[in-house]
Amino acid sequence: MDQQKLYLKIAGDIKRLVESGTFRAGDRIPSIREMSRQAKASINTVKTAYGYLEDRLIIEARPQSGYYVVPPPAELPREPVVDHDEISPFEISPSKLVVRIMKDVLDPEMVQFGAAIPDPALTPSLKLSRILSSQSRLHRGNSTAYVTAPGNRRLRYQIARLMQKAGCILSPEELIITNGASEAVFLALQALCKPGDAVAVSSPIYFNFVEMFTLLGLRVVEIPNSPKNGLSLQALAHVLENNSIACCLVVTNFDNPMGNSLSDQEKEQLVQLLKHHQTPLIEDDINGDLSHDELRPSVAKAWDRSGMVLLCSSFSKTLAPGYRVGWIAPGKFFEDLLHRKLVANIATATPTQMAIAEFLENGGYSHHLRSIGKAYGNKLARMSEAIRRYFPPGTRLTRPKGGFALWVELPGEADTTALYAAAIQEKITFAPGRIFSTDGRFQHCLRLNGAFWSEENSWAIARLGEMTTNLLKS
Amino acid sequence: MDQQKLYLKIAGDIKRLVESGTFRAGDRIPSIREMSRQAKASINTVKTAYGYLEDRLIIEARPQSGYYVVPPPAELPREPVVDHDEISPFEISPSKLVVRIMKDVLDPEMVQFGAAIPDPALTPSLKLSRILSSQSRLHRGNSTAYVTAPGNRRLRYQIARLMQKAGCILSPEELIITNGASEAVFLALQALCKPGDAVAVSSPIYFNFVEMFTLLGLRVVEIPNSPKNGLSLQALAHVLENNSIACCLVVTNFDNPMGNSLSDQEKEQLVQLLKHHQTPLIEDDINGDLSHDELRPSVAKAWDRSGMVLLCSSFSKTLAPGYRVGWIAPGKFFEDLLHRKLVANIATATPTQMAIAEFLENGGYSHHLRSIGKAYGNKLARMSEAIRRYFPPGTRLTRPKGGFALWVELPGEADTTALYAAAIQEKITFAPGRIFSTDGRFQHCLRLNGAFWSEENSWAIARLGEMTTNLLKS
Repeated sequence: MDQQKLYLKIAGDIKRLVESGTFRAGDRIPSIREMSRQAKASINTVKTAYGYLEDRLIIEARPQSGYYVVPPPAELPREPVVDHDEISPFEISPSKLVVRIMKDVLDPEMVQFGAAIPDPALTPSLKLSRILSSQSRLHRGNSTAYVTAPGNRRLRYQIARLMQKAGCILSPEELIITNGASEAVFLALQALCKPGDAVAVSSPIYFNFVEMFTLLGLRVVEIPNSPKNGLSLQALAHVLENNSIACCLVVTNFDNPMGNSLSDQEKEQLVQLLKHHQTPLIEDDINGDLSHDELRPSVAKAWDRSGMVLLCSSFSKTLAPGYRVGWIAPGKFFEDLLHRKLVANIATATPTQMAIAEFLENGGYSHHLRSIGKAYGNKLARMSEAIRRYFPPGTRLTRPKGGFALWVELPGEADTTALYAAAIQEKITFAPGRIFSTDGRFQHCLRLNGAFWSEENSWAIARLGEMTTNLLKS
Repeated sequence: MDQQKLYLKIAGDIKRLVESGTFRAGDRIPSIREMSRQAKASINTVKTAYGYLEDRLIIEARPQSGYYVVPPPAELPREPVVDHDEISPFEISPSKLVVRIMKDVLDPEMVQFGAAIPDPALTPSLKLSRILSSQSRLHRGNSTAYVTAPGNRRLRYQIARLMQKAGCILSPEELIITNGASEAVFLALQALCKPGDAVAVSSPIYFNFVEMFTLLGLRVVEIPNSPKNGLSLQALAHVLENNSIACCLVVTNFDNPMGNSLSDQEKEQLVQLLKHHQTPLIEDDINGDLSHDELRPSVAKAWDRSGMVLLCSSFSKTLAPGYRVGWIAPGKFFEDLLHRKLVANIATATPTQMAIAEFLENGGYSHHLRSIGKAYGNKLARMSEAIRRYFPPGTRLTRPKGGFALWVELPGEADTTALYAAAIQEKITFAPGRIFSTDGRFQHCLRLNGAFWSEENSWAIARLGEMTTNLLKS
């Protein structure tokens, strides 16, 4: 490149970095000497480029210090921010809707009835921060090093002990630590299915599972689940008799989104039925620790004698979603899962594993669970009462005994995607029913995250009720 | 279940938990009341079960306290630990070999010439631990909450600034934080390829990439790369002319394992060539920050005007592998990658992102890079000298100008998988050449992690040289 072109390139690059926000007002940009080396340009060429930028008031020289980005002229209003996420909800794909709902999490002004994140006031963030802090100082060399899969030994030991309370006999050697339960389920699906395979899953389906099926090219057979009749084992038996099913995926306790659980007897039946058909079960127990009445329900894996149940869970609902610590007990698929975890990302972050292990051992986890289970039970009761008051007659509502999600079925032809589009304008987010199935059949339903219920947020339920009533009238 | 069976089940479960190490000597097991509730058994049934276990010296009652696991009798030697990883290296599959090498990382007695992990003495673990500690206290509520994809804004801003030094103009909005560079590459491959597709990749291939291709069902076209002639762009052009290639994957700087880099001109040519064929490039720049001579090499993405280059890197080699913080600048595939990251595991851990962001902003990263680049250069020079001294004549060796891996080609028919099997018996691990290709063609080669070179470890090179000489004689 000749020096003429080169100076324009250097000036153009700096200009773009300033425009894109990588260099901000007041930032020092590379010195002339540094830039000369980086851009393989002569000192004079860089000086010409910097002079060009100075003339245009993009940078300024400060004596004995270097070149700095100039703030934009004060009197001008800022350029508009084009929100590429601005969506027409009637046209948006389910995947984009899911991405949007997950992004709502980051908006502090939004009333968080969308993604099923816990109430920050009910996560022990102060204690965890202290523990993370002391653990990372205590083990400092080890806290920055890999703990390659299967993951932190002490953490796996604590999880095995915890699962004993769910009737499940596990050794630490049977566990693999993952980046949350999502990764556990995603890796399990990849181990058990190839594109085109069919998966049997309780329906309505947690929306991120629907996205997984789409990304993996899986066919989905939806097994009806309802608060009244529970998961239809009869329908599942019928499906298994007449189809080739690669695996079955069920949230056995406090289902997401329906809130109901399989009884011990149903869990045993489910395991027997699947064993008979040689079909593995991915069991998601993400809400198992969130019982409202202190009774830790069992897991289906407690009845698994053949290693066909892959049990998944995490501490994202009870302790810290941002720590990304989940796990899988993959039964006879252990070696395959271990391999897949290593290939996908080698390991889960070390310090957060250490912190969760310490919390489980010495942080009073049982006490914490009793207290938050009760609190979430209260929140759901109050939110349900508000829904009764503000939503139109004919609205139906689940009565979960654990977790913190409510599933609402609206009367008539209400389109909750349209409701969502209107609600986010008023800074209320929730999960429209359409994304809980592969064919949009729950368009008239919605899932509310009750963890963020509070008296201060009750206006948002009143407003949602009002908007729903208007929607049904139109 | 009748009470007779139930007491045997309770006793059997406890016995298994003790045997598997979930309940250890001295641990308190659930009280009679707790167990009665958990197992849905009468108090008397649990008492019978616990009595049975007491008779067999598995548990003991301590007055006013509960039941505790009894230590095994002192005079008996411990039961042998069966190592399920015990392998016959001649029969082991490449995947199992990779799992084994990654597991070697966890053995503190092993000389770590295997996985390309940094020298702990050259990672700023004290400073990082302090930063992690202060950041998690400072932002405590936020440090336990999700930072859903694309990830921490401040970190993305710092990475964009960093890449300016590689001639690459990026805005923070173009970046997604991942669990290390591995996840970045794995997600990129999934976005660009479907099973059966062909990928062009520089060969020898970093072994985890080979595993990714296997798991994703991809066909692999190996493009020759050698220290003398570099990556053959001619061969790549030929392949692109005559095949349908879904994407190309290249480590552009200080290749893993060959150590060589593309020149600026070759990077530009590579980008042009691929653009001409509308083939996306996954560029792995994992070693880009590890130049031995302070010169930060450019990245191919600097010449990308069409968004077809997906640039991946991480801080696993320079700061903290255990923090699992990497990133991708996926060009025009941004939305797809964002979706895939969300579905795969929602987010990367929050506190470690915060810590890396703070280190990049205020921790003296540039200074740190200069110092470790020089140190790794010295280590490789000394290790090379030891190899010259101890390995048989005819051995060939790379001369990397960055990173910390050495690639060794042995004379004759030496099988480095057999060498590995012998070496791990003496607590030396390395990466046998066989796993750096899809067809085992580098069986006579090995990769050594020079980061763990030290005078104290020099015996391991001498021993490897001796073992190699013996191997060639046999």
